[in-house]
Amino acid sequence: MKITVGMFGFGKAGSCVAQEILKDDICKLKWVIRKSKKNEGDYASRLLGFEGDNGKIYSIDSIDKDAFFKDNYVDIIIDFSINSAVETYRAAAEYGTRIVSAISNYGEAQLNHLKELGSKTAVLYSPNITLGINFLIEVSKVLQRIVPEADIEIIEEHFREKPDASGTALRIAEDLGLDREKHVNSIRVGGIVGKHEVVFGLPNQTIRIIHESLSRAAFGQGAIYAAKWLIAKKKGIYTMEEAVKLSFARNIKVFNIDK
Amino acid sequence: MKITVGMFGFGKAGSCVAQEILKDDICKLKWVIRKSKKNEGDYASRLLGFEGDNGKIYSIDSIDKDAFFKDNYVDIIIDFSINSAVETYRAAAEYGTRIVSAISNYGEAQLNHLKELGSKTAVLYSPNITLGINFLIEVSKVLQRIVPEADIEIIEEHFREKPDASGTALRIAEDLGLDREKHVNSIRVGGIVGKHEVVFGLPNQTIRIIHESLSRAAFGQGAIYAAKWLIAKKKGIYTMEEAVKLSFARNIKVFNIDK
Amino acid sequence: MKITVGMFGFGKAGSCVAQEILKDDICKLKWVIRKSKKNEGDYASRLLGFEGDNGKIYSIDSIDKDAFFKDNYVDIIIDFSINSAVETYRAAAEYGTRIVSAISNYGEAQLNHLKELGSKTAVLYSPNITLGINFLIEVSKVLQRIVPEADIEIIEEHFREKPDASGTALRIAEDLGLDREKHVNSIRVGGIVGKHEVVFGLPNQTIRIIHESLSRAAFGQGAIYAAKWLIAKKKGIYTMEEAVKLSFARNIKVFNIDK
Amino acid sequence: MKITVGMFGFGKAGSCVAQEILKDDICKLKWVIRKSKKNEGDYASRLLGFEGDNGKIYSIDSIDKDAFFKDNYVDIIIDFSINSAVETYRAAAEYGTRIVSAISNYGEAQLNHLKELGSKTAVLYSPNITLGINFLIEVSKVLQRIVPEADIEIIEEHFREKPDASGTALRIAEDLGLDREKHVNSIRVGGIVGKHEVVFGLPNQTIRIIHESLSRAAFGQGAIYAAKWLIAKKKGIYTMEEAVKLSFARNIKVFNIDK
Repeated sequence: MKITVGMFGFGKAGSCVAQEILKDDICKLKWVIRKSKKNEGDYASRLLGFEGDNGKIYSIDSIDKDAFFKDNYVDIIIDFSINSAVETYRAAAEYGTRIVSAISNYGEAQLNHLKELGSKTAVLYSPNITLGINFLIEVSKVLQRIVPEADIEIIEEHFREKPDASGTALRIAEDLGLDREKHVNSIRVGGIVGKHEVVFGLPNQTIRIIHESLSRAAFGQGAIYAAKWLIAKKKGIYTMEEAVKLSFARNIKVFNIDK
Repeated sequence: MKITVGMFGFGKAGSCVAQEILKDDICKLKWVIRKSKKNEGDYASRLLGFEGDNGKIYSIDSIDKDAFFKDNYVDIIIDFSINSAVETYRAAAEYGTRIVSAISNYGEAQLNHLKELGSKTAVLYSPNITLGINFLIEVSKVLQRIVPEADIEIIEEHFREKPDASGTALRIAEDLGLDREKHVNSIRVGGIVGKHEVVFGLPNQTIRIIHESLSRAAFGQGAIYAAKWLIAKKKGIYTMEEAVKLSFARNIKVFNIDK
Repeated sequence: MKITVGMFGFGKAGSCVAQEILKDDICKLKWVIRKSKKNEGDYASRLLGFEGDNGKIYSIDSIDKDAFFKDNYVDIIIDFSINSAVETYRAAAEYGTRIVSAISNYGEAQLNHLKELGSKTAVLYSPNITLGINFLIEVSKVLQRIVPEADIEIIEEHFREKPDASGTALRIAEDLGLDREKHVNSIRVGGIVGKHEVVFGLPNQTIRIIHESLSRAAFGQGAIYAAKWLIAKKKGIYTMEEAVKLSFARNIKVFNIDK
Repeated sequence: MKITVGMFGFGKAGSCVAQEILKDDICKLKWVIRKSKKNEGDYASRLLGFEGDNGKIYSIDSIDKDAFFKDNYVDIIIDFSINSAVETYRAAAEYGTRIVSAISNYGEAQLNHLKELGSKTAVLYSPNITLGINFLIEVSKVLQRIVPEADIEIIEEHFREKPDASGTALRIAEDLGLDREKHVNSIRVGGIVGKHEVVFGLPNQTIRIIHESLSRAAFGQGAIYAAKWLIAKKKGIYTMEEAVKLSFARNIKVFNIDK
């Protein structure tokens, strides 16, 4: 049995994710919906150098939203497009299609919209879909519990065009109770794929936890991991942290360091 | 009540540790035993800019080992000297003095000697006495369990004169089951106090956990933490890991990343 | 006018370089010679997602070496294959084809062979073809002149399968007069594209110069830069350092730091 | 012959600088002027563990400014105190005492005041007195000329209490023509002595130049270097860059990278 997948988004990240799905043994890429009309009617598989016709490309303006998601049913939609896409695939949720969304800049209304879908199907929402990033977040939470007196700063580096602070960095700030204006430092230079560093400063020692994405394929692998996990879940809203079961933060005993 | 402390070693690390003990509210530095005859009869407190006469300095060749440890009883010996010192303070263990040893290059006979002392008193042995380093070790063990397929390398940087690989780096290698010849990379330049980095490499992402000591005072704070913890323990051999109760590694669930 | 290019090598690095050549306005990829018979007769352009038929793929065993280089004359051969390829394109040099070789592990005989070609055509040889790496090398030489008493270590990180120390790291060691066995530290983990760090240690300060390749496209851009520079040169052996004219090291005045 | 030195400031940095002066063979610390009345009448030498009575400590409110600088003439004043101290030592300049100021946050009036002193004596002003930092600045300027299209960000890390962005980071931003609000990222955690990193980002490669101060002794060594250089200079305003004669930036030829 294969898990059928529909993709939203075919930009820098989206096409890398599509590539990983095409390589995967269990997932099968059925279609790709993108904003522009470029390559409409082509197959993502062919464009990415694979054999066979997989991942037919549709422009979002060319589809009949209700009929499309019924006629082209998939088990999972993976969304690496833009924050307004959530309004498009409401009908898909009605048909039981599960949703993995990696969008990092939802507005409040859009986020509510996504949560509503959780009453109809299983939805996993995470702006930080690489597994390593979730390790970084969980370990940082542990370290903060161990040394609550440590000063903490977040440094994130991305390619020059990336707007705003990274959703992941904001999430780390939120999880650690840090003011995002003050403690998230965004570096935008050249072609850096993605680097997140959490610095813990104590009077006589510094601890750094650093995650570097080497290629956007890491997003694809995270999304596939999430998709396979979500396929067995009931309706509801889930997070990547739940998917990776990084539960260790809950169980550790606390000690004091460097006071 | 004060915890009385005797120090072995008054070199680069030893004198920094003495300084932290002198600042501590609960510990009281009674004496310092060193190899050379330099400053014999002086007080460590005066040499380090403190008021009062604390930490009288003795040369190891000037003391009568049996009588000394009885007449100058201390609750704890903290050893930052050399690997042969363990043979000197056997008598102290007989009188119930507890031992904190931070020596990193014991030979097998010396290590056995130290373990024997554990049948007479409480002994804590750790070549990596800073608390942050123990966090680094424990977190690395967790990450290895989560992503067993990751490649792991250890990089340690220290001041130019430091001989051999650091005891801490070797310990990390041992704990992670890595060949120390192949996977411990030692950088010796200038005046670097101490930096340990564990690099986890996956096909599309890299995770780094880095600990930097900013000053040898971190060793003193670790040693004081260990001393206070050890004072309530029964005879036996203990490790810093036990002292910091970083037990979280035992409780986490395992998942796979980036396959 | 276009510069016609023939490529040797179509592996990880080679295909990335081919891709950059295919994107370039001035270079035209005429053929690719590879070791295996895979994709023989196909076009690199099609395999890499470009329109048009460019870069026809030949297996090295299928070509008649003398006739091939005459019948398929190119202005430049760019070699990202293996160290024995140099023996193959001797005939090309006779016809005036220029050579850019980025091979890092030539044996002595092969290196002599390459130098002989320099008596027939213009040859640029550099195992470190990215422009940034050459900056790192030149700046390191300057800093060593400024602070000759600094301790220097080289750390290089690459993907797990890369054998031996990197040619670039060895070159840096040679240029700085460092024993390569002692001072080159090779980290092999996961999918790291390529990172070189030169650490200068002084008693109270450390200076690090770090170059990270984010994608192998950097090699292609360096190779294209070298090709365009070489096209106007007379016969002889050249280096990337000459191509980038990083001549500043020769002109600076020396001062002493941190003694 | 000795160079006699008077110090302004005896805080974290000031006392480290005093210590280096006390160790130096050519400099002789005559007095220290500080803001508080703490240790007034004591000798810096004794407080810092040296033999002999050197560096008598005065509170700034206890001295008669005109008479003091005549009666206690020194060849050089080294100022690691606060931005208002410049108003105090005007009289010293009249007597020919040279000035080395490492103050990083002068207001405009104070800076003008300092410049006026340059019409009476030789004044060297540098908020970034370590020699390595000046190397970092000069090399960054070179690299910017080589790759003008590179994106540049500055990251500076210091101990938690350090207010505002570091003077050095602002200077780098100014020298590279970068908006200081946008491109200087300040990390304030724990006890970090001082780290400055300049990141150059290109589409496929990143270059980082990093300077780390391991101890404030580096400031002292820089100040002593500056003092010895300044002693032979005529009246005027000088910079550390001039003192270290890092003139190489002027001589290099420009090439383009990674376009």
